[in-house]
Amino acid sequence: MGIRVAVAGASGYAGGELLRLIAGHPELDLVTATAHSQAGAPVTAVHPQLTGLDLVFAATEPAALADADLVFLALPHGESAALAAALPESVRVVDLGADHRLRDAAAWSRYYGGEHAGAWVYGLPELPGQRARVAAATRVANTGCYAAAITLALAPLVAAGAVAPADVVVVAASGTSGAGRAAKAHLLGSEVMGDLSPYKVGAHQHVPEIKQATGATSLSLTPVLAPMPRGILATVTAVPAGDADPRAVLAAAYADSAFVHVLPEGTWPHTAATLGANSCHLQATVDVDSGRVIVVSAIDNLGKGAAGQAVQCANLMLGLPETTGLSTYGVTP
Amino acid sequence: MGIRVAVAGASGYAGGELLRLIAGHPELDLVTATAHSQAGAPVTAVHPQLTGLDLVFAATEPAALADADLVFLALPHGESAALAAALPESVRVVDLGADHRLRDAAAWSRYYGGEHAGAWVYGLPELPGQRARVAAATRVANTGCYAAAITLALAPLVAAGAVAPADVVVVAASGTSGAGRAAKAHLLGSEVMGDLSPYKVGAHQHVPEIKQATGATSLSLTPVLAPMPRGILATVTAVPAGDADPRAVLAAAYADSAFVHVLPEGTWPHTAATLGANSCHLQATVDVDSGRVIVVSAIDNLGKGAAGQAVQCANLMLGLPETTGLSTYGVTP
Amino acid sequence: MGIRVAVAGASGYAGGELLRLIAGHPELDLVTATAHSQAGAPVTAVHPQLTGLDLVFAATEPAALADADLVFLALPHGESAALAAALPESVRVVDLGADHRLRDAAAWSRYYGGEHAGAWVYGLPELPGQRARVAAATRVANTGCYAAAITLALAPLVAAGAVAPADVVVVAASGTSGAGRAAKAHLLGSEVMGDLSPYKVGAHQHVPEIKQATGATSLSLTPVLAPMPRGILATVTAVPAGDADPRAVLAAAYADSAFVHVLPEGTWPHTAATLGANSCHLQATVDVDSGRVIVVSAIDNLGKGAAGQAVQCANLMLGLPETTGLSTYGVTP
Amino acid sequence: MGIRVAVAGASGYAGGELLRLIAGHPELDLVTATAHSQAGAPVTAVHPQLTGLDLVFAATEPAALADADLVFLALPHGESAALAAALPESVRVVDLGADHRLRDAAAWSRYYGGEHAGAWVYGLPELPGQRARVAAATRVANTGCYAAAITLALAPLVAAGAVAPADVVVVAASGTSGAGRAAKAHLLGSEVMGDLSPYKVGAHQHVPEIKQATGATSLSLTPVLAPMPRGILATVTAVPAGDADPRAVLAAAYADSAFVHVLPEGTWPHTAATLGANSCHLQATVDVDSGRVIVVSAIDNLGKGAAGQAVQCANLMLGLPETTGLSTYGVTP
Repeated sequence: MGIRVAVAGASGYAGGELLRLIAGHPELDLVTATAHSQAGAPVTAVHPQLTGLDLVFAATEPAALADADLVFLALPHGESAALAAALPESVRVVDLGADHRLRDAAAWSRYYGGEHAGAWVYGLPELPGQRARVAAATRVANTGCYAAAITLALAPLVAAGAVAPADVVVVAASGTSGAGRAAKAHLLGSEVMGDLSPYKVGAHQHVPEIKQATGATSLSLTPVLAPMPRGILATVTAVPAGDADPRAVLAAAYADSAFVHVLPEGTWPHTAATLGANSCHLQATVDVDSGRVIVVSAIDNLGKGAAGQAVQCANLMLGLPETTGLSTYGVTP
Repeated sequence: MGIRVAVAGASGYAGGELLRLIAGHPELDLVTATAHSQAGAPVTAVHPQLTGLDLVFAATEPAALADADLVFLALPHGESAALAAALPESVRVVDLGADHRLRDAAAWSRYYGGEHAGAWVYGLPELPGQRARVAAATRVANTGCYAAAITLALAPLVAAGAVAPADVVVVAASGTSGAGRAAKAHLLGSEVMGDLSPYKVGAHQHVPEIKQATGATSLSLTPVLAPMPRGILATVTAVPAGDADPRAVLAAAYADSAFVHVLPEGTWPHTAATLGANSCHLQATVDVDSGRVIVVSAIDNLGKGAAGQAVQCANLMLGLPETTGLSTYGVTP
Repeated sequence: MGIRVAVAGASGYAGGELLRLIAGHPELDLVTATAHSQAGAPVTAVHPQLTGLDLVFAATEPAALADADLVFLALPHGESAALAAALPESVRVVDLGADHRLRDAAAWSRYYGGEHAGAWVYGLPELPGQRARVAAATRVANTGCYAAAITLALAPLVAAGAVAPADVVVVAASGTSGAGRAAKAHLLGSEVMGDLSPYKVGAHQHVPEIKQATGATSLSLTPVLAPMPRGILATVTAVPAGDADPRAVLAAAYADSAFVHVLPEGTWPHTAATLGANSCHLQATVDVDSGRVIVVSAIDNLGKGAAGQAVQCANLMLGLPETTGLSTYGVTP
Repeated sequence: MGIRVAVAGASGYAGGELLRLIAGHPELDLVTATAHSQAGAPVTAVHPQLTGLDLVFAATEPAALADADLVFLALPHGESAALAAALPESVRVVDLGADHRLRDAAAWSRYYGGEHAGAWVYGLPELPGQRARVAAATRVANTGCYAAAITLALAPLVAAGAVAPADVVVVAASGTSGAGRAAKAHLLGSEVMGDLSPYKVGAHQHVPEIKQATGATSLSLTPVLAPMPRGILATVTAVPAGDADPRAVLAAAYADSAFVHVLPEGTWPHTAATLGANSCHLQATVDVDSGRVIVVSAIDNLGKGAAGQAVQCANLMLGLPETTGLSTYGVTP
């Protein structure tokens, strides 16, 4: 008998990917998948890719989750806190939403509205010392998808003093699954195929999380919607602060990481190479004209940016090898 | 120590998918991956999605393959026969090429040119009695990708007498990876995105294989190139021959199959739901106007249409459970 | 001062394309564009591609349209009839909806529900004698998008006795704009990119229109949703009825057509080659195995399949050269 | 009889778009289209979207071009200079290549190699005073595609002192047609669909052109290949230098421009909205966290980024209204 896990909010894209990863995980047994409007429907009515998984969505209520060993919360922002509070302390929780990521309550209220529910251990095991903190925690706040890509690119450089923490400029493009599966006209295939468009320019709600996680003191993030289902490509530029080689700093930081790979020199990341995997691909250089450090990071927004990251954290919390049930190899082409 | 496997022709798309599946397979150890022009290059120079796999392509020669327990041949049509002939009988071989699929030498010569190398056991375990034949074989000819999708849709209906074997009409669209990774102008992203176009209309080389595998006596196949990397959607229509319900016939034929799923009534296949998986999704109905039986089949052309199918055959040949290392769940969205 | 035209239902995709074509038309002046829920909004809030067009959507009411010389109706099926009935006879009308296409009232009611509003002149000028009928009409029913592609491929062959009218088999794939811009989850970019899926299999509402327009007596249509914004590729197969060369029959039928092109032998249609144009590309052959005639037809579903066709009809109705303001050249790559 | 124009290098993507624009232009008559390896082939063998254009590629030689009134050169970088030198002064020339864009010979040699051929009038009519210079010139160097998008976003802000000329950071993503139609494996549809990847990071050859055109003194450009055939989205960030509102500065600069549109406040550019058009869509804001000015610019890389821009320049050089034969409306969806 395996470890009993449940997914709350399993009808969304991150939820569907969690179900896929759990189904392929050798130690986890899925006991419940909950949804709101889809409660009562077969999981496969929403997720045809899970054909063969014989399960019906339960309603999203604490009783449906309380006898699991670990619960993944893949709920809209603002819905995790109340549900988590209703679960016994003995149930481990990984929250894929934003409710418990920020330590700064004012920043939370400014970007998300409502009252701050308090910060949990931040679910990015590759940060220094974080693997142990996650392993010891019963409540973990998974990273946001942009935050995962950008923090992995930037945090070691700020920590090493290789770049200035101020005036970081990021442009990050995401596949459309990052926008969720609510039916909105601007997300129709007819609108997004063949199109690139920025959104939330100048004030994205993930900036405080990214600053907290990276140590950046001022950061401009321009998110772009890209014509592909999955993937984030983040281009991070910063002012150099020393003479350290940025690629070497990153390579050292991730030398022991199973999931974060600094590519061979001259090779730049492709988002497609991370599709379906929990990997992050990085490369860095110094711009010949401006002198800026440029780091490019690629992840699957539903992998290392959401469900993969969450399973990685769950593995640590449950005392399993970090890589159990996760792949570093992308489904490409 | 696991079972030692090698992949010849590992620089193509089917070869790359084989490497990915072998890397995630609990019983198989990859000992060699060979290539022609890429011999000497790191595998990851061609397959960035395999970042973390520390291996260099060997040259495609018998000596590189002879000490494996099982060899996958993912070579251009016409190159498998000579290489296979040079391998010891003790080495099991799964050929993903066309060289050994046809029993009819004349048909082979007409469509492929050159001399026929003889037929091997046909690698589609879901055909009646075929699972045992594959398990007993040391040489297996993997199905073609179109043939896999179409045969799974049609063969049980012909066998049951539910449709006439003559006048079968098939239109099947494939993602671009089915055309391989040779650099050709008409396969450039600029050309294929936003485009649908038929090719080899009226005389496709896979027709003899499909007729042999399905029992159809006359069959029109129009292949279409579709703007997506992977996936085949085959629409198969045939004249009904009795009063059997075609969906019921298919459901019965695949009741015990782990990989072939007849979808719930009213639900039609999506290629994306099979991405990265070894599954085939089927649905059938009778057209109200023409009375024709319509069956639609979806697979991943690199999964059940190539590498997944090949691993499934290898599992059987090696005495492993058929599903080892394979997923039925697609990477979607 | 040009000819005054209005578009009712201009917030949809066909409506937007009509606005684009009218804006580039040397003889037509757009006086009104109406919408339902978008009434009062700038046209560019819905159609950013029309930036520079300074116009606000009016409400869809007869009074807004009555002083135009010609009105295009791009309304949901079932809404055209009442609006058209309220317009003066002096106002010419081209209806892009289905309300007035069918002569068979029973077929209309069966597929669309409600009462039949009566048939108008069918807006496909390339049919024999139809150019003059359209030119003489004050009310024209534009073709459906699938019907346009399929009829142009099939009608001359049936008329010439080159194929049997029974047992026609069609598989036609369409870009997503054919499904409209209503926000539905299954049309999200995340769902459709990388995916092919059939819909309305076995009973599509366009079959009666296609049979009426082509002379086919029994026809199976399987529509497929393709991962691209625009374009229809129709594969039409039929049983040969004589020894006429199907390609020659088509070439003769369209020898004088500005918009319908039978491609050079051996060259098959690409939907992308018709993007933004009013053209239809055709090719035909005889299948070597089954002996079936195979015709493939490519159009832009919003061009020759909707707005382009409508402008072509309007040109004829207004006594203008048929090609005024229309292009035969696609926007490719 | 219209103005006689020729296109040298008409088999590429920019060349094909030039042929399409010329075919729809009321004053220009295409007399010759030349190509290298395709010389002797029908234009439609390379450009199926031009079906109906009955023309064969001539060889690219001065004699084929010398009797035109105006020649467009759409040749690989380094080939324009020699050909242009062989044309009579009376033949006006618009060069879509890079050979004559840079005034700085050293920069040219560093990025392109070989000897500098001298600078021509820069073909971006929207720069201050440039419309008149283009109109008076017989030799015009068309902008590069990235340079067009970035210069339109940045030049007015630098000129107005609204941003500092140093430390400009640009990330710009382009559709695949920007990479040309040479058959390369990394540009295959299977590779680019679903993928974002940067290239030439840290040292792009267009940086000197952009600095020259914008007045920037230090600029980091990270180009990204995006999974769509056409379109450039440039995100340009700069340090504010005064208290001018960047959007107002841009709106004033382009108040009289037919092709460059500053969008309504809160509306951000979509590349798809410029498809097939000669338009540029702009929006600007100030980032709340970093204080940086962010401008986003969208164009069609083959429109305002290449062929459209070239026709606009040709119109001016020939004394025609600037907008003749060009559209501001995109082909969307």
